[in-house]
Amino acid sequence: MDVRDFPRDACAIAAAVVDIGDRWTLLVLREAFFGVRRFEELRRNTGAARNILTERLNRLVDEGILRRERYSEHPPRDEYRLTEKGLDLYPVIVTLAQWGSKWGSLELGPAVELQHKSCGAVIQPALTCPECGEQIDARSMRALPGPAMRARAS
Amino acid sequence: MDVRDFPRDACAIAAAVVDIGDRWTLLVLREAFFGVRRFEELRRNTGAARNILTERLNRLVDEGILRRERYSEHPPRDEYRLTEKGLDLYPVIVTLAQWGSKWGSLELGPAVELQHKSCGAVIQPALTCPECGEQIDARSMRALPGPAMRARAS
Repeated sequence: MDVRDFPRDACAIAAAVVDIGDRWTLLVLREAFFGVRRFEELRRNTGAARNILTERLNRLVDEGILRRERYSEHPPRDEYRLTEKGLDLYPVIVTLAQWGSKWGSLELGPAVELQHKSCGAVIQPALTCPECGEQIDARSMRALPGPAMRARAS
Repeated sequence: MDVRDFPRDACAIAAAVVDIGDRWTLLVLREAFFGVRRFEELRRNTGAARNILTERLNRLVDEGILRRERYSEHPPRDEYRLTEKGLDLYPVIVTLAQWGSKWGSLELGPAVELQHKSCGAVIQPALTCPECGEQIDARSMRALPGPAMRARAS
């Protein structure tokens, strides 16, 4: 069983990419993690056109990544907040930011820093092995056939 | 200084999103991490149309994320391999896969599993605080004004 032949129709990356593999969607999620919740602010901060932003917000609500909450009845106005499913995207956004920070030639360095609330340290979150605690990267990991691939093969 | 007012034109997430915030680009990167290197295999595995795949590959090469390597002269044929900049996207791809695996309702579970070469354990990589070693998530972190934001404010 060659892991390169894994079934693409059972791919976790594809499942994620179909929901959030889009420039505007990722910028909206960035704003959501900063606590920006209102249409006009989202529009200003992302630079998205109104129709594009509306479409992306509707899709994120449909997917259960954001939820709508009415904050004004006259006129009717909604806020957008991250659900649990949305909050779970934090590692994706953080690792994107780290890569952009390293490779994006930002003249003045990163705009924001991250503080770990419980220990107080300003840190760069690291992807680690929960068994041995070592930091991992592409070269230190190997892909093996998983449950879906073994099921298909048998 | 409210961190929500950070300068969006100095944003590390935007810098990353402009390079890879695209469905086909992310699927091509998935393939690259699996060691799939040739146009026809990339086309088959991603389902991208030829012109779309060509455009995305050219862009990834221009951005220095993939490099072209000729493997046949007659006919002229190139392979695509991850550069250091490309390999550094591993945490983004892994966290996307974890999210897709948790929320994507994959009937048979994930297609592949990840083994940490040095300790041999089959693991789920975890985003942790390098100071205290605790696993982190959206709720355990706080964004603070960083170098670019402090520079703009002064």
